[in-house]
Amino acid sequence: MKILNLIPIVTDIWNDDMQKYVTRGLLPGTEVIPRRITHGPASIECEYDEALALPDIIALSKAAEKEGFDGIFVDCFGDPGVRAAREVVNIPVFGGFEPPILYALGIADRVGIVTVLPNVVPMLRGNVAKAGLQDRVPSIRYVNIPVLDLEGIKKLIAALIIEGEKAIQEDGVEVLVLGCTAMVGAKEEVEAGLKAKGYNITVIEAAQASLLMLETYIRLGWKHGRIAYMPPPPKKRVWWTGDGLVEI
Amino acid sequence: MKILNLIPIVTDIWNDDMQKYVTRGLLPGTEVIPRRITHGPASIECEYDEALALPDIIALSKAAEKEGFDGIFVDCFGDPGVRAAREVVNIPVFGGFEPPILYALGIADRVGIVTVLPNVVPMLRGNVAKAGLQDRVPSIRYVNIPVLDLEGIKKLIAALIIEGEKAIQEDGVEVLVLGCTAMVGAKEEVEAGLKAKGYNITVIEAAQASLLMLETYIRLGWKHGRIAYMPPPPKKRVWWTGDGLVEI
Amino acid sequence: MKILNLIPIVTDIWNDDMQKYVTRGLLPGTEVIPRRITHGPASIECEYDEALALPDIIALSKAAEKEGFDGIFVDCFGDPGVRAAREVVNIPVFGGFEPPILYALGIADRVGIVTVLPNVVPMLRGNVAKAGLQDRVPSIRYVNIPVLDLEGIKKLIAALIIEGEKAIQEDGVEVLVLGCTAMVGAKEEVEAGLKAKGYNITVIEAAQASLLMLETYIRLGWKHGRIAYMPPPPKKRVWWTGDGLVEI
Amino acid sequence: MKILNLIPIVTDIWNDDMQKYVTRGLLPGTEVIPRRITHGPASIECEYDEALALPDIIALSKAAEKEGFDGIFVDCFGDPGVRAAREVVNIPVFGGFEPPILYALGIADRVGIVTVLPNVVPMLRGNVAKAGLQDRVPSIRYVNIPVLDLEGIKKLIAALIIEGEKAIQEDGVEVLVLGCTAMVGAKEEVEAGLKAKGYNITVIEAAQASLLMLETYIRLGWKHGRIAYMPPPPKKRVWWTGDGLVEI
Amino acid sequence: MKILNLIPIVTDIWNDDMQKYVTRGLLPGTEVIPRRITHGPASIECEYDEALALPDIIALSKAAEKEGFDGIFVDCFGDPGVRAAREVVNIPVFGGFEPPILYALGIADRVGIVTVLPNVVPMLRGNVAKAGLQDRVPSIRYVNIPVLDLEGIKKLIAALIIEGEKAIQEDGVEVLVLGCTAMVGAKEEVEAGLKAKGYNITVIEAAQASLLMLETYIRLGWKHGRIAYMPPPPKKRVWWTGDGLVEI
Amino acid sequence: MKILNLIPIVTDIWNDDMQKYVTRGLLPGTEVIPRRITHGPASIECEYDEALALPDIIALSKAAEKEGFDGIFVDCFGDPGVRAAREVVNIPVFGGFEPPILYALGIADRVGIVTVLPNVVPMLRGNVAKAGLQDRVPSIRYVNIPVLDLEGIKKLIAALIIEGEKAIQEDGVEVLVLGCTAMVGAKEEVEAGLKAKGYNITVIEAAQASLLMLETYIRLGWKHGRIAYMPPPPKKRVWWTGDGLVEI
Repeated sequence: MKILNLIPIVTDIWNDDMQKYVTRGLLPGTEVIPRRITHGPASIECEYDEALALPDIIALSKAAEKEGFDGIFVDCFGDPGVRAAREVVNIPVFGGFEPPILYALGIADRVGIVTVLPNVVPMLRGNVAKAGLQDRVPSIRYVNIPVLDLEGIKKLIAALIIEGEKAIQEDGVEVLVLGCTAMVGAKEEVEAGLKAKGYNITVIEAAQASLLMLETYIRLGWKHGRIAYMPPPPKKRVWWTGDGLVEI
Repeated sequence: MKILNLIPIVTDIWNDDMQKYVTRGLLPGTEVIPRRITHGPASIECEYDEALALPDIIALSKAAEKEGFDGIFVDCFGDPGVRAAREVVNIPVFGGFEPPILYALGIADRVGIVTVLPNVVPMLRGNVAKAGLQDRVPSIRYVNIPVLDLEGIKKLIAALIIEGEKAIQEDGVEVLVLGCTAMVGAKEEVEAGLKAKGYNITVIEAAQASLLMLETYIRLGWKHGRIAYMPPPPKKRVWWTGDGLVEI
Repeated sequence: MKILNLIPIVTDIWNDDMQKYVTRGLLPGTEVIPRRITHGPASIECEYDEALALPDIIALSKAAEKEGFDGIFVDCFGDPGVRAAREVVNIPVFGGFEPPILYALGIADRVGIVTVLPNVVPMLRGNVAKAGLQDRVPSIRYVNIPVLDLEGIKKLIAALIIEGEKAIQEDGVEVLVLGCTAMVGAKEEVEAGLKAKGYNITVIEAAQASLLMLETYIRLGWKHGRIAYMPPPPKKRVWWTGDGLVEI
Repeated sequence: MKILNLIPIVTDIWNDDMQKYVTRGLLPGTEVIPRRITHGPASIECEYDEALALPDIIALSKAAEKEGFDGIFVDCFGDPGVRAAREVVNIPVFGGFEPPILYALGIADRVGIVTVLPNVVPMLRGNVAKAGLQDRVPSIRYVNIPVLDLEGIKKLIAALIIEGEKAIQEDGVEVLVLGCTAMVGAKEEVEAGLKAKGYNITVIEAAQASLLMLETYIRLGWKHGRIAYMPPPPKKRVWWTGDGLVEI
Repeated sequence: MKILNLIPIVTDIWNDDMQKYVTRGLLPGTEVIPRRITHGPASIECEYDEALALPDIIALSKAAEKEGFDGIFVDCFGDPGVRAAREVVNIPVFGGFEPPILYALGIADRVGIVTVLPNVVPMLRGNVAKAGLQDRVPSIRYVNIPVLDLEGIKKLIAALIIEGEKAIQEDGVEVLVLGCTAMVGAKEEVEAGLKAKGYNITVIEAAQASLLMLETYIRLGWKHGRIAYMPPPPKKRVWWTGDGLVEI
Repeated sequence: MKILNLIPIVTDIWNDDMQKYVTRGLLPGTEVIPRRITHGPASIECEYDEALALPDIIALSKAAEKEGFDGIFVDCFGDPGVRAAREVVNIPVFGGFEPPILYALGIADRVGIVTVLPNVVPMLRGNVAKAGLQDRVPSIRYVNIPVLDLEGIKKLIAALIIEGEKAIQEDGVEVLVLGCTAMVGAKEEVEAGLKAKGYNITVIEAAQASLLMLETYIRLGWKHGRIAYMPPPPKKRVWWTGDGLVEI
């Protein structure tokens, strides 16, 4: 099967290590093709960034369906454009938020999220509230490191362990979800670090979890309900192209 | 004071009657200036339309603050871009959803919304859930008339009265909110029609309510908390202009 | 328009400064006439005080409607008698709780209240629960100063800033509501004090907010639904007068 | 032990049959003494009636404690004045709402209430919400018979059976609570009537349940927490007596 | 009346002091007969223990009804087997959890539980969630003493006072429920210890409360609804006896 | 990998068709071995049946871990013994309830369950409440066919389509979960039947979904948190064997 890894930022962060890391749980036949948006933010860390990313996320989603992709992963923890994309395509679409949270619910009563910046917390609180999961996801914390600085992996891991321990001790959390799809490579070390402190807890990496869930839905033929996600009514829609504004 | 009536669609529906109708409750000194987005949907009736409208909503919001506007009304019941706009400007911003709902809560335990199409219902259910108001807003219904056909005022009013009566009888609703800012001119006739059926109930028209709440916040100097709505981190953001993609 | 500022205590605390302060946001044509109850408590700080205040609150409300008042503000943060008064009159009635809370919801996800005494906290928790707003109003704190000692403005402001900072830091609050309508003159200094500590947050003064919301409803002709607030069934009701017990 | 049956209305409805009926579950040593308020409504069917009843409910409660009563039952389903009375006395106080609801929760997941008039429904909805029991008490219905007409027992029972069946069928209710303490003598016939329709369901009569719970708390020495129900702060409180207004 | 005190563990902890202590609130005519299960755990401190206890709890319940018992108390705070037992018998059945919680709700807005081990906390959280009482029971703490070590009464009481104070101070609790039916003899000393620290609070002992509620329901003839607790469909069920596996 | 398909009933319903059907989504290397309990009910349709099934479910779970199984699927929609089994083993354990519900949440806002008998509805309502998912799973219906009669596949499918349509129309459901793991072979026909009525909706078959989720967790190494699922304290536990009661 062919999955589009839709990177909703204009920064070229994708590399082979990332690709290997987030896809290592997938089946042999599953091909994951990364593709970046061309207009939008360098990273998504607030509602404004998300807004700028949406139009091209949807454009790439439509194109992907036409090209014969079997599913789309919008590679961001905020699930930007996921609901809109589900309206316009008939193939499964997941972002980076819903899948790891649902998987986490399967092994613990209380889930904790550790994300990047305080700016993101209200957005994630909104996602949790919209999902009706406040009782199950009582803890949303942040490491205060911007997305594009996450490469400084050591600093990130130390911060994740500190916030993870607080989430366990103060918020009664029993599983941790890494709240940014760019925190690649951290899961194993955070689990080890927490184990060293006596916490036997699973840490779920969002991108891997999302690609897995997507692969599962494609294999099973499960689709988003078109009762919930009705196709958009036909109408005039004006958008930019190289030639300026045109109807799309 | 100077308020921007930000019309988040590319259709030129604005006219003097509308202007008179939605501003008739405002103070003499309050100037409401309509301005349309240039790229986006002809009307907002699904998540996809909303996504296409967001970037220009934010661009017009930033420009309005620079020009010295005192507040911004995003003239759509779905509150598109309101949270993002609050991040980028320091002047009050309201959409068409939050104000009429908050005002309705002031006179009834149970609020009912009647909107345009079924496509919009999940979006509004999401707004209600994000606002934590499920117990207070138990009823979201629709007339099944597209935004751009609402001019057919007679048909609209008949449908609003039918759905309004159902909301009262079946959902225990005590006040009605018109769930689209383009339902101008209907409020009075719907109230009269329901009164004729024995229901003494207030109907709140969304655009008027929102402009009023905006005017109040401006007068009082109440502002959205920058703890909740942190300013976006500075970063590269690429967007379209007449000359193609540039950094904004 | 003519608004009754119904003071539900027998203490003569009203003065011109107060009047000026809480009405400064109103329109030129709006006249606010203060009137005290004659039997009841010196201040309202518990359920017992509230109970003693109710009968005269309702009596003054009925009289006000007869006299041609356009609306009634029951000047107490607990909303004493508001629901009962809405049953007996057809003009808008607001207390000091609902309006500032609704306005606060318009600019923040999480609202904090700081009231006078611990005795009041369970009452306010009850108000929040009845309003279904527990998720939006997670913080109710107190300065531990009785209503009639609030004049000691310096002490009050210091305490409000301390509790306000705790509400922000510990409860994640993004806007503060002063939880007593007699905390006049404090709002500006509390905002300044919190700003000095690095918190850019709006503080809403309850009496001013309530008079404003009342004025708005009167101007717009919005009324409490008589489905929710049915007129009381006619029956014998015995009450005190100068001549002892009579039917009212 | 000596219990005050505090009748919060000025109508002389009490009689030996009632007394026998509601006390038949009590212990031999338990004496129940009825006492009516002298100023207030003929019956409680709205917030206004309740407000008028409160002051004398509290006055009689204080007197009862002084006289050596062991507990107080405020004989009305709305729990009027119960919270205020708990503030001013150290003996157990129950109204007619909380005990039957708590007992009903002990034998069913979903409780239904059938009360007298539509006016009462919002009040009871408020009680349920304040108690945080919305999920357990999904059904509040009414027979549309005023309190003082309940004597027409046949008509009442027929209506209770009709609404009871609807509560079972439409609201999934598994136990019924009679939502007025003056529905004496109905419980057995409603149970029989529903059994005849194939519903094996317990009906709880409110006054009996409340006196029983009160008796239990007195016997066990369980008391309302003075942390929740703090004693009222001493202050001037002005009230009516035969000699006009005096401080109490 | 004859009540079965069904001890759902194989340890012989029952003694006359216990019997006297937990029954001292009952009526003269009420006979409480203890009976232990023969196969199951030495104590119930996790889901696994509970599972092993269930079959014999139900067997003893059926036998008790046949023998003419009037009601059954499953003597464990987790309410093990209560729902199943209610399906198979027509006499009232209570465990040790529901009754003290319901009674506690009658005297306070916020209830706190102090149980034995951390293993039990998720089970109790589950009970609270199933009962829809999260808002009313915000605090579940533990003394970290196994059930069979509770005899060390001094150590237990000290720990209960420490956790009780935390529940009051940190969780805003207004009444305490002892979260294990084997904490006999502690209630009075914990109340005294908390009073010495300035907390005037009622502590409810679970076994006594449960026997009392059971006695009340038997006297009143209140029964669990057979709509909620339908009798099990007849079918083959295989179980152990001295002769090995047989159909029951 | 080796998965135990733990059949928690004593009836020999398993056959090759079933095995093929529920495993058809699994990976080549995944071996699913069915194993039945030896003492317990013929089918699980009430709390009593569940109670009888638990001990052997746990015994088989422990044995499976010793034998080197990689995970356990307790093949029943009620999740019987899942929490207890997670306490005693370190390999992933899922029942038939949690996985299909979590997967369903990934494609719709509102999930509907259609189960076998009314007896099961309160149990499932309890599962939903314990999971904090009431807002997402508003609909639990039943076909009124006992588990062991489900073979009558035609009758079952007709009933599922009828209840499914009601769930969509009356409860606003957007995805259906078959509420019994023995409804094999129905999913495709129910989807087709609903499509024929104009409902484009995914139906999730519980056993297949659960085996898939289990396989995923095993592949990824995700484990239930031992903070939530603490190992049972060592103690005497008495149970049946061929030789009568022994310590286990």
